[in-house]
Amino acid sequence: MNNFVFYSPTEFVFGKDTEAQTGSLVRKYGGTRVMIVYGGGSVQRSGLLARIEESLQAAGVTYCELGGVQPNPTEPKVYEGIRLCREQGVDMLLAVGGGSVIDTAKSIAVGALYEGDFWDFYIGKASITKALKVGVVLTIPAAGSEGSGNAVITHSVTLQKLGIRAPEVLRPVFAVMNPELTYTLPAYQTASGIADMMVHIMERYFTNTEGVEVSDRLCEGTLVAIIKEAYRLKANPNDYDARANIMWCGTIAHNGTCGVGREEDWASHFLEHEVSALYDVTHGAGLAVIVPAWMAFVAERNPKKVAQFAHRVFGVPQSDDLLEMALSGVSQLKFFFRYIGLPVSFKELGIEQPDIDTLVANLHRNKGLTVGSYVKLTSADTEEIYRMAL
Amino acid sequence: MNNFVFYSPTEFVFGKDTEAQTGSLVRKYGGTRVMIVYGGGSVQRSGLLARIEESLQAAGVTYCELGGVQPNPTEPKVYEGIRLCREQGVDMLLAVGGGSVIDTAKSIAVGALYEGDFWDFYIGKASITKALKVGVVLTIPAAGSEGSGNAVITHSVTLQKLGIRAPEVLRPVFAVMNPELTYTLPAYQTASGIADMMVHIMERYFTNTEGVEVSDRLCEGTLVAIIKEAYRLKANPNDYDARANIMWCGTIAHNGTCGVGREEDWASHFLEHEVSALYDVTHGAGLAVIVPAWMAFVAERNPKKVAQFAHRVFGVPQSDDLLEMALSGVSQLKFFFRYIGLPVSFKELGIEQPDIDTLVANLHRNKGLTVGSYVKLTSADTEEIYRMAL
Repeated sequence: MNNFVFYSPTEFVFGKDTEAQTGSLVRKYGGTRVMIVYGGGSVQRSGLLARIEESLQAAGVTYCELGGVQPNPTEPKVYEGIRLCREQGVDMLLAVGGGSVIDTAKSIAVGALYEGDFWDFYIGKASITKALKVGVVLTIPAAGSEGSGNAVITHSVTLQKLGIRAPEVLRPVFAVMNPELTYTLPAYQTASGIADMMVHIMERYFTNTEGVEVSDRLCEGTLVAIIKEAYRLKANPNDYDARANIMWCGTIAHNGTCGVGREEDWASHFLEHEVSALYDVTHGAGLAVIVPAWMAFVAERNPKKVAQFAHRVFGVPQSDDLLEMALSGVSQLKFFFRYIGLPVSFKELGIEQPDIDTLVANLHRNKGLTVGSYVKLTSADTEEIYRMAL
Repeated sequence: MNNFVFYSPTEFVFGKDTEAQTGSLVRKYGGTRVMIVYGGGSVQRSGLLARIEESLQAAGVTYCELGGVQPNPTEPKVYEGIRLCREQGVDMLLAVGGGSVIDTAKSIAVGALYEGDFWDFYIGKASITKALKVGVVLTIPAAGSEGSGNAVITHSVTLQKLGIRAPEVLRPVFAVMNPELTYTLPAYQTASGIADMMVHIMERYFTNTEGVEVSDRLCEGTLVAIIKEAYRLKANPNDYDARANIMWCGTIAHNGTCGVGREEDWASHFLEHEVSALYDVTHGAGLAVIVPAWMAFVAERNPKKVAQFAHRVFGVPQSDDLLEMALSGVSQLKFFFRYIGLPVSFKELGIEQPDIDTLVANLHRNKGLTVGSYVKLTSADTEEIYRMAL
C-alpha cells in the first residue's frame, strides 16, 4: 500500500426534502451573497429553483443567477460567471445541477479570485491556491464532483477537454443530495451517470499496487451495489432506495473512499475526453463505448486484476485461465451497459467513422507519450483501443 | 434508506514516516502551543515521542506533556489535563496513542473551555458546543477515535462507562497514521483492536432499515478485508501491508463510511462497557466474548441479517434455513476470534463467575429499559446474553 492522504471535508446532507436546508447551510459556511449556477430549464420547471430561492430568502441570503450551463461545459460561461461574480460581490457559489454545473461553478470560484485568465490553471500556467467556497444541490448522480476536488472544462476553440485538481481548495463545503430530485432524469442520462460512477471506481481499481485489500473490497462492493440497484431502477425508475443507493455510490466513487493507497489509471477517462470534446457526446455514454475496449486490450497484457474484477463483481467462476476469466468479465460488463440502454461501440454511439487519427493525436498532445498505469498505453495502443470500439 | 449527514472532515495522513509531518500539521490547523497526551512509556522507549517533539520544534510549536493515560481511561487524568491546559495556555491537544489517549484528549478539549465539570457532558447535564482542536498520532488501530466525533470515559467512583458524541466539534482535525508504529503491539492488543473495529462495523450492519445495499456492501467488504489481513498478520506480525490494511479499516469502521442511512444497534458495545467498567478488561477482548452470544441470541429472533452476514462475510452457503445459516456464521466468528487469540467466553476472559445481576442492573440504569434496535433487548434478554457468554 502506498502512502496517502484522505481528506473529504464536504458535509453531505442526504435524503428527502434536504434542499430546504440550503439556505441555512450557506449561512453555516459563511455565505451572504451567492450566485446560483444551473443548466437548462428543468430546475425552473420542476420548481426546485424556486424552493431553493425560498430557502435562501428565509436564511437572509441574497443571490444572483447564472443559468444556461451546457453539458460538456465550455469556457465562455465561466468568463460570464467570473464577471457577474465580481460585479455582484458574490462570496459563495451555489451549483444546482450535475457535474457540468458544478465544474463550471468551481472554475468560476477559482477564476474570480485570480487576476489572469482562469484557463491558465487548466493548461498548467498557474497553480490554484484559493477559491470562493462552493455549495452544491445535486440533481444528477454521475460525475462525483459534489465531493471531489476536481473540475473539467472543454475549451470551445481548441477543443481541449482538460481538468484541474486542488483537493484542499476545490471540494464543495456542502452538498445537498435528495434522491427524489433524480426521478425525472431521462433513462439515458441515468444510465450514463451509472457508467460514469462505475468507471470512476474502475480507474482506481485497476492498479498494479499490491497490498490494497481494503480498497479493492470497497471498490468491488460499491460496483456490486450499483449494478444491483441499476436493475431495480430499470424495473421502477421511481424506486426511492434504488435512486438513493445510486446517488450515494456516485459520491463515494469519486471522493477518495475507493482509492486510497494505490496508483490510479485514468486512461479510459482520457480516451473518452477526446471523444466527447470532438463529438459532444454524453461523457458516461462515451465511457460505455471506450471501457470494454480498453479492458479487453489490457486483459491480454495484464489479466490479473481484470480476472479478479470478473470474479468478484460479476461472479465469473475462478479458473487458472485468467485471460478467459477477464474476457468473460468484459462480456458481462458490455451486457450490463447494453441492458441499461447504453451504447458499447462508436456505431451505437452514432459515430460511424470516428476520426481516430485526430483522437489519438489530440490525446497524446494533451496527455503525453503514454497514458494509464495498469498498462501504459502508447499511441499505437490507444489507436488500437479506439479501433476495437468501432 | 434513512436521511443522513456524512461529515468526516479529518485530514488522514497515512503511511511510512508520516509522524515527521506532525509539526507542520499542527501549524496548518492553527496550533502554536500543544499538550501532548500519551499513555505508558512505550512511546518514550520507542523514540516516537522524541521524533514528534523534534517535528514540533522544527515547526516552531511549543508543547507541554501529559503522560500516564491508562486503558479504560478515567476522569482524574482528564481533570489533570484540564488544569494543565489552562495553566499553560494550550491551544491544541495532540494525542499520541490509541483510543484511551484520544478519548482523554477529547474530554480535556471540551472540559478546558467549560466552566463547570466536564462530566456534565457525559451525564447529559450540558451539551457540547465548543472544544479545543485535537490532532492525533495513532499507535493502536482499534477504537476509530482518530476519525470519530465520540469519546468514552469510565468514572472511577461510580464505575459508569459513558460516551459523548459531537461530530461537528470532536472530530480530530488531523490524524497521522503510520502502520509501522504498530509492529511492536503485543499480539493480544492487535487482536483486541481487530475485534473492536469489526464490532464497530457490525453495530451499523445489523439493522432493520431496508434499501441500504451500498452500506451493506461497504460493511461486508471491510469485514472481509479485516479477516483476510488478520490471517496474514498472524503469519507475520511485521507484514506492512497487512498492518496498513488493518489500520485503515479501523478508521473507516467508525468514521461513518460504513453506516450511512441506517438505524444502528450498539447493544453489544453497551453490554461490553459494563463488563470492562466492572472488571477493567480490554474492550476488544470483552467484545469477542459478548458479540457471539449476542449474535446467537438475536439470530433466534431475527435471523435475516445474521444469515446475510454469514453468507457474504464467511462464505456460509445460502439456504432457506436462515437460522441455520446464521448460527453457522456465529460459529465461524467464534472460530476466527479464537484463532487470533481472543477469549470467546467469560471463563476464557478470566472471569469465572461474573456478577450478572450487577452487570444487568448497571446496563439498564445507564442505558434505559431496552438496548439495541436490530432486536430490542429487555433486562431479561441482556441477562440471558450474559449467561450465554459464560
